Amino acid sequence: MRRALELAALGAGRTSPNPLVGAVVLDAAGTLVGEGYHACAGTPHAEVHALHQAGPRARGGTLIVTLEPCCHHGRTPPCADAVIAAGIARVVVAMADPNPQVAGGGIAQLRAAGLEVITGVADTEAQALNRAFVHRIQTGRPLGILKWAMSLDGRTALSNGASQWISGPPARAWVHQLRAHCDAVIVGGGTLRADDPLLTSRGQREPEPLRVVISRSLELPETAQLWDTSSAATLIAHGPEAPAEARARLAALAAAHPGVQTLELGACSATALLEALAARGCNQVLWECGPELAAAALREGCVQQVAAVIAPKLLGGTPARTPLGDLGFTALDQLPLWQASAPQQLGADLLWTLTQEAP
Amino acid sequence: MRRALELAALGAGRTSPNPLVGAVVLDAAGTLVGEGYHACAGTPHAEVHALHQAGPRARGGTLIVTLEPCCHHGRTPPCADAVIAAGIARVVVAMADPNPQVAGGGIAQLRAAGLEVITGVADTEAQALNRAFVHRIQTGRPLGILKWAMSLDGRTALSNGASQWISGPPARAWVHQLRAHCDAVIVGGGTLRADDPLLTSRGQREPEPLRVVISRSLELPETAQLWDTSSAATLIAHGPEAPAEARARLAALAAAHPGVQTLELGACSATALLEALAARGCNQVLWECGPELAAAALREGCVQQVAAVIAPKLLGGTPARTPLGDLGFTALDQLPLWQASAPQQLGADLLWTLTQEAP
Repeated sequence: MRRALELAALGAGRTSPNPLVGAVVLDAAGTLVGEGYHACAGTPHAEVHALHQAGPRARGGTLIVTLEPCCHHGRTPPCADAVIAAGIARVVVAMADPNPQVAGGGIAQLRAAGLEVITGVADTEAQALNRAFVHRIQTGRPLGILKWAMSLDGRTALSNGASQWISGPPARAWVHQLRAHCDAVIVGGGTLRADDPLLTSRGQREPEPLRVVISRSLELPETAQLWDTSSAATLIAHGPEAPAEARARLAALAAAHPGVQTLELGACSATALLEALAARGCNQVLWECGPELAAAALREGCVQQVAAVIAPKLLGGTPARTPLGDLGFTALDQLPLWQASAPQQLGADLLWTLTQEAP
Repeated sequence: MRRALELAALGAGRTSPNPLVGAVVLDAAGTLVGEGYHACAGTPHAEVHALHQAGPRARGGTLIVTLEPCCHHGRTPPCADAVIAAGIARVVVAMADPNPQVAGGGIAQLRAAGLEVITGVADTEAQALNRAFVHRIQTGRPLGILKWAMSLDGRTALSNGASQWISGPPARAWVHQLRAHCDAVIVGGGTLRADDPLLTSRGQREPEPLRVVISRSLELPETAQLWDTSSAATLIAHGPEAPAEARARLAALAAAHPGVQTLELGACSATALLEALAARGCNQVLWECGPELAAAALREGCVQQVAAVIAPKLLGGTPARTPLGDLGFTALDQLPLWQASAPQQLGADLLWTLTQEAP
């Protein structure tokens, strides 16, 4: 199962809306005869790769797989059928598929066909590996990661707005890697206007994550790196309150940059945006926004992990930008509990990650 | 020398205005026959303790000492005389005494008396041990440590001022320990009014560090834990601009609480305060103040080390208090460089320390 989990992780960042899955086939004598992982939505599942590699040696053998084999027709045929057809005698499964279209159905089908099925092996590791997928299935929204870089005195910019660069090259390279594990990267209009960011993984993910701008006012710059969609797609989202004149400007912008997509949400909220992104197949998104949008995303429960890069610098300045706007707390005992990681050194900077405690 | 440095460190927090010093005596055959350290100003120096322990066995032996033996009459007689009188043949010294009253004079006196003197052994370690003493001798001001506790989003209080407690019990115990290594703990009037702090080491240092309030307006509460001086002394400092009416209130307060001392500075500045504290024998002070006083202390070069306790919490709130007021920077390349320590876990909290890079 350890090997199957390793294989599953190879697909990280590229399988959405599907989960990460790895599979191993042993022949009747216990010899490894096939390996596979799910590399990309629309392509064969991990089990199919592993069974294909094993060929006739799978007969009477064991399939070890990190997620329950599917029993429904999606973009590919059901894996449970393939497992039975290959003559597998025993299946070891780490976790059941939380997808309501499967949800134990695959396991039931295998057992009905007379196969021995062992479940719950390394369930914790498998759940952690697919935390984003499980979150999306359970909530209808992708898992949200909020990332910022700040000085040790909690500033994300000087009083005059200067913010490039607070963190050093190793921390910025780490951000590119983080983006490669996300399906979309979200900023607000303010960050777009202030920083004109590129928001890509610098080629580490193929395709690049979707770059999303959410803006209430639609006051967007005429020129921006995001309007060049040759390396990555860009989506501009807004709410029903966007003024007619701003919509006209947006239409002109989209006409001038054919790769730029636009989306009107039912409401200009973090929740509505994430629901729309889930519908587009996003399992995990990265908030790289300013304090007000970040605070709104937190208040709406759209952030499950916070990654703060702390630079050994002191910026100072009472009017200087901070990571978060108002969260509405009036007493310290109201604060939700976060699970902290061990701090990680990124060059001179420190990365500290907080993860939402399981409810 | 390693043993002598260990011995020296035993006096930490209690020798001011004197340095930390440790000494070891070996007899002519190289056997350890005496150990000593400087425990408290006004009591015998390390060399005297070690020589006393060695007695006649010191004759023809070696003295290993972390700091050059003194050659001036202070509260105790010169150590160089005692070393010569004991018949020591060889002296190994880690660092010269930066005190202009000594500054190589002790070493010269020993050499003139025919003793072999070896210098510079573990000089770096000895300098680090006495960083505060050296800083005070060189600048006329005690070494300043600025400490704060904040949430991961850089807040030291909620928008409504609630701040107790952001950090957990292990971090607060560490602060008590830090205070035990300082000669004075400084707050401003705002912190006094908001937090009514106790500012002691909770008995870890005897006597407790001097508790200092610096206030421009002298708007001080009538009752405060600091006015009870049964466990620790309190000093209220102000500048020449303090209004007459406030001075009258201060006089009444001091009359009502005889242990409370007052001090008028030439200017209500961090520098003037530290010069006054150096004159009172402080080698190292702790700034535990609010953002404006902390920023002033930094701007004036009165902070050589910053210790930030970071709690795995998110407080949020644009009007909420932050660690530092304005430092006057307009571009990120103006920021001074700080040397960062490895982060240290204090319960659930993280301690990250920045030290001024050597100029």
